[in-house]
Amino acid sequence: MLVVMNQQATQEQIDAVVAVIESRGYTARPMPGGQRVAICVLYNQGAVDSSPLVGMSGVKEVIRVTNPYKLVSRELQPEDSIINVGGVLIGNGHLSMIAGPCAIESEDQALTIARHVKAAGADLFRGGAFKPRTSPYSFQGLGEEGLKIMARVREETGMPIVTEAMDHEVFDLVEEYADMVQIGTRNMQNFTLLRRAGRSRKPILLKRGLSATIEEWLMAAEYIMEGGNSQVVLCERGVRTFSHHSRNTLDLSAIPVVRKESHLPIIVDPSHAAGRRNQVIPLSRAAVAVGCHGLMVEVHHQPDAAMSDGAQSLYPGQFQQLCRQIDSLFEIFKPLGNMDEMVI
Amino acid sequence: MLVVMNQQATQEQIDAVVAVIESRGYTARPMPGGQRVAICVLYNQGAVDSSPLVGMSGVKEVIRVTNPYKLVSRELQPEDSIINVGGVLIGNGHLSMIAGPCAIESEDQALTIARHVKAAGADLFRGGAFKPRTSPYSFQGLGEEGLKIMARVREETGMPIVTEAMDHEVFDLVEEYADMVQIGTRNMQNFTLLRRAGRSRKPILLKRGLSATIEEWLMAAEYIMEGGNSQVVLCERGVRTFSHHSRNTLDLSAIPVVRKESHLPIIVDPSHAAGRRNQVIPLSRAAVAVGCHGLMVEVHHQPDAAMSDGAQSLYPGQFQQLCRQIDSLFEIFKPLGNMDEMVI
Amino acid sequence: MLVVMNQQATQEQIDAVVAVIESRGYTARPMPGGQRVAICVLYNQGAVDSSPLVGMSGVKEVIRVTNPYKLVSRELQPEDSIINVGGVLIGNGHLSMIAGPCAIESEDQALTIARHVKAAGADLFRGGAFKPRTSPYSFQGLGEEGLKIMARVREETGMPIVTEAMDHEVFDLVEEYADMVQIGTRNMQNFTLLRRAGRSRKPILLKRGLSATIEEWLMAAEYIMEGGNSQVVLCERGVRTFSHHSRNTLDLSAIPVVRKESHLPIIVDPSHAAGRRNQVIPLSRAAVAVGCHGLMVEVHHQPDAAMSDGAQSLYPGQFQQLCRQIDSLFEIFKPLGNMDEMVI
Amino acid sequence: MLVVMNQQATQEQIDAVVAVIESRGYTARPMPGGQRVAICVLYNQGAVDSSPLVGMSGVKEVIRVTNPYKLVSRELQPEDSIINVGGVLIGNGHLSMIAGPCAIESEDQALTIARHVKAAGADLFRGGAFKPRTSPYSFQGLGEEGLKIMARVREETGMPIVTEAMDHEVFDLVEEYADMVQIGTRNMQNFTLLRRAGRSRKPILLKRGLSATIEEWLMAAEYIMEGGNSQVVLCERGVRTFSHHSRNTLDLSAIPVVRKESHLPIIVDPSHAAGRRNQVIPLSRAAVAVGCHGLMVEVHHQPDAAMSDGAQSLYPGQFQQLCRQIDSLFEIFKPLGNMDEMVI
Repeated sequence: MLVVMNQQATQEQIDAVVAVIESRGYTARPMPGGQRVAICVLYNQGAVDSSPLVGMSGVKEVIRVTNPYKLVSRELQPEDSIINVGGVLIGNGHLSMIAGPCAIESEDQALTIARHVKAAGADLFRGGAFKPRTSPYSFQGLGEEGLKIMARVREETGMPIVTEAMDHEVFDLVEEYADMVQIGTRNMQNFTLLRRAGRSRKPILLKRGLSATIEEWLMAAEYIMEGGNSQVVLCERGVRTFSHHSRNTLDLSAIPVVRKESHLPIIVDPSHAAGRRNQVIPLSRAAVAVGCHGLMVEVHHQPDAAMSDGAQSLYPGQFQQLCRQIDSLFEIFKPLGNMDEMVI
Repeated sequence: MLVVMNQQATQEQIDAVVAVIESRGYTARPMPGGQRVAICVLYNQGAVDSSPLVGMSGVKEVIRVTNPYKLVSRELQPEDSIINVGGVLIGNGHLSMIAGPCAIESEDQALTIARHVKAAGADLFRGGAFKPRTSPYSFQGLGEEGLKIMARVREETGMPIVTEAMDHEVFDLVEEYADMVQIGTRNMQNFTLLRRAGRSRKPILLKRGLSATIEEWLMAAEYIMEGGNSQVVLCERGVRTFSHHSRNTLDLSAIPVVRKESHLPIIVDPSHAAGRRNQVIPLSRAAVAVGCHGLMVEVHHQPDAAMSDGAQSLYPGQFQQLCRQIDSLFEIFKPLGNMDEMVI
Repeated sequence: MLVVMNQQATQEQIDAVVAVIESRGYTARPMPGGQRVAICVLYNQGAVDSSPLVGMSGVKEVIRVTNPYKLVSRELQPEDSIINVGGVLIGNGHLSMIAGPCAIESEDQALTIARHVKAAGADLFRGGAFKPRTSPYSFQGLGEEGLKIMARVREETGMPIVTEAMDHEVFDLVEEYADMVQIGTRNMQNFTLLRRAGRSRKPILLKRGLSATIEEWLMAAEYIMEGGNSQVVLCERGVRTFSHHSRNTLDLSAIPVVRKESHLPIIVDPSHAAGRRNQVIPLSRAAVAVGCHGLMVEVHHQPDAAMSDGAQSLYPGQFQQLCRQIDSLFEIFKPLGNMDEMVI
Repeated sequence: MLVVMNQQATQEQIDAVVAVIESRGYTARPMPGGQRVAICVLYNQGAVDSSPLVGMSGVKEVIRVTNPYKLVSRELQPEDSIINVGGVLIGNGHLSMIAGPCAIESEDQALTIARHVKAAGADLFRGGAFKPRTSPYSFQGLGEEGLKIMARVREETGMPIVTEAMDHEVFDLVEEYADMVQIGTRNMQNFTLLRRAGRSRKPILLKRGLSATIEEWLMAAEYIMEGGNSQVVLCERGVRTFSHHSRNTLDLSAIPVVRKESHLPIIVDPSHAAGRRNQVIPLSRAAVAVGCHGLMVEVHHQPDAAMSDGAQSLYPGQFQQLCRQIDSLFEIFKPLGNMDEMVI
């Protein structure tokens, strides 16, 4: 940490800052700059809480240097984590395709879509049983009945299943059925839920919050890992910006940054970022080209009749076309060496 | 709702859109514009789900007209709601001051600060017992012990108390002690928690999410009201933007907008918006001048030693100064008529 | 246009809105909704100015339906524009690579870099002679001397040259030398400069503003086309958001949206979006995969000694690697059909 | 400046960074932290260009410590600047009211509005003669005829006049007529125009760019001051965020920050921030309460018929009401001491 003092800061003010730093067990070393003094905090293990220093007299700014995350950091674990989801591997060298409807509506709907996506090349089946909805008047999902339907889909198609748990009560139930439990965008900083996920034996799919920085996102993953569960897959799904031609702005630069900072795999959900069908295929191609480890895409055989998010769901034929394009794309990276080298 | 068609949209495409609208029980009326057709949806009660229409062939755009909220809307209830929090009224004609430390650290700390803020003019006491923290390694609050300390503060000072419930399990506990239960920024769309708040008999302080639109915020309040609890106070606390000279950007235009759209009272938390002490007093004045119904301000007698958010906590002397300024400010609005007219 | 009235709007208020609309020569038709009246504006040619209606009594909201742009619109010209820049084609079916240093520093520097990028496969050479710099104390470019150096680069390598004109005075000079004149991010709404570009006989490279919507960007292109110059190439280069792990957030969803709305070609500048070298190659791949018509990339043989933007400049070897990856990527799209179909 | 190295950075990498820093004439001092080395740059006068260091091997991050601005800085000039605009003072202790229509439409319109605002208490008259418009098809202003009308307004009412110059050619003309020349939001980083303003003998009103940081804004002012003109007034007018209930989000925390960082006066334009009439009065009150030095407000006697921005223009009666409220507000600050102390 670096504490930058005002030009007019007095020796007393500098001494006071040094005293607060040292009272917390750190070493402080004042450095004379050209125009002002800066005070370095040395030999700290982990991040130092800057808050008490920010408001002190004579202090211009406090600059953090150490990342607050540990277990998720590539500095701690240099090699990539590979997560096993019911036999499907997600991580370096693998490109996993997760597909299915936004919400499970009926067994017939789920199985119809599952057969389509399986045939086209999907590795995992996704679907919502408990739906977080902006409005209390919207369809909230089938609940446990939805989970049972998903289990039957797995039985029939062999695809492991991914679904969201919205709170820690429901987590117990979802954990029983799902091969990977999703923590949604709105819950990225639901710390109670993160702690519950940390006690789970199932892999966790952690979506980025709508306006979360990468540091906050990795700290959310740190909560899960610190709780004892190291099977975390990150999912970029767009962030909120001033721009409204897509529902959210897909932040693909997050992929190289996360891959540099962390050993955890990262996939992309282009459906929620786009919010409309015709951007999903181009953004999927871009996500694979940027170096993600997988895609999660919404597919519906009758999107006009879907109970949620029909606008962004691909038709089965479009999903097939997407899979073919992605395969070709992934193919070309082999002569170029593995993805890691590509990212640099 | 208005469905805008492409210039080249065919009659078949227009008919298909009309059919989907009418299959959902609404009336569709195509309107020829200068360059394209737009299809109006008529006689709908409440919002129409636009999603199935967005991706249909020939559709350029779907524009929503009806607000999705009902119970929170001023169109339903024209007169202002006034919320009674342990005897203190929040709402039109009242300017409520809520003050206290970010986190309850000890009985001594809480009582010291409470006596200061009470003497300066605070109406309610705030403090955190369960703290949502970005890092799993940060101080997480004293838990129930913190609630007990707050109860003793109420006993001694007479100030009703406000504190946060982070999940629905803890809600039961918090509800027993607190006079108003806070739902924090990160939980604004924790729908399970909102439903729990809807079943509570205590008033709820609902903070705006970090990147929530006003519509999403009012929909979160709708969840609570729909559940049966109409005692909701909204709290603007800054939104996340590109701008980093304050921790968040306080969005004061939200106050006239919320007061126009809803009958619920709205207060402002300048401390979390600013993130540093020296912006808190000017932003507090601005919040009162724009027409809010109250302030929630962090105060600490030893901010350099605070266990969280010391940088933004006012010293007791500053809080006293703030209260004096606010009183003068509020005074001048009397000859101008009531606050409602001020907002226009 | 659609004028949405309050639920309580009176017949007088509705009549007043109708009167204002009709006083401007349009047809107004009130439509009874379930809960309120909306007034459609019919038979307008081009966009209607909504401003006078927004503030009228009883008006809840005014919703625009017609796009304000004409000449840039794909509705006017369904087939893609292909722009000829000194013999190099930019547009559908072509993937153009523009490369070079941020600033021209000397003839030696420019020629060294130009030979590298030419050998690796660049089609056009870029470099700054007049540099817009945030600080008046930073290097501002070599001016006309820089343009002369670029002309010698063209002479030696055969690559057409692209450089920025910062104001309409300098435009005359730049136009003499350059094969394509760039209008930079900060000047996207410098309307005087746009009008000057509209009178030019040279193609214009129009970068997106830092927080411009796609509509504003297309309107800036409309200024140029309305002035008589239809040779416009758009360039996405990242927008400003809360996110700071890259300098700007590259908004790749802009590519399918622009390609749907407009016939103009669109390229991507990953260097300014990223702001650091190690994100440039992944983002370049993503840009090509999403369906852009070209890339503009900064390259420097000695970035540690560069006079501006060294951090984001690729080393020549990296640029070569990028070109190879892009070639493979573009190759795979041939069996899939042309780019247009890819975008859907 | 502080260069933070990776944990795995080698001694060679550290030495290379030190060498680059010292090759530029600065002193580098490596500091061993708990987990990594950071290298401090010492004894630099002014900001150091970080760009060459960002991309070097082993470098994790480069952190700037020194502000890049000098002349605008309060560290250089501790006392407030007070700007004299045709006899009206703007700055500490003065609250200046600038009012008038968005665009000058006719002599009759201008004089009618001017008489109203003068009577209500305006100090300066504003109006646009050259209008920057998003669309080439919109009304672009009366040009020099508009300036002549403004001069007649000054003659009749005695109010000094403020109007915008959109480019450096028009600047000569505007400078002849106006008492203060406005540089608009879209031109905040039009460096040619800033340099022209630096050579002017007239005060400059510099609006904040739509997504400008405060540092960029102060650097734009630095361009003007560096050119020799120290009469600069800053104007906050809202920034672009995800939030669309107002046209832009008025960033009132900018006022205490600018007043802390700079000696230049700062005023607020609530009309462009709000974009609709009913937010203008509340936001104006907030701006005064936060501690700005003046307001710039749009007023029109027939907003329904205005040629631009009618929606946000106050009616004359509303402006009168605003002036009365502001006067009362400003009154209460006298017993509290001057504004500077209020800001803390």
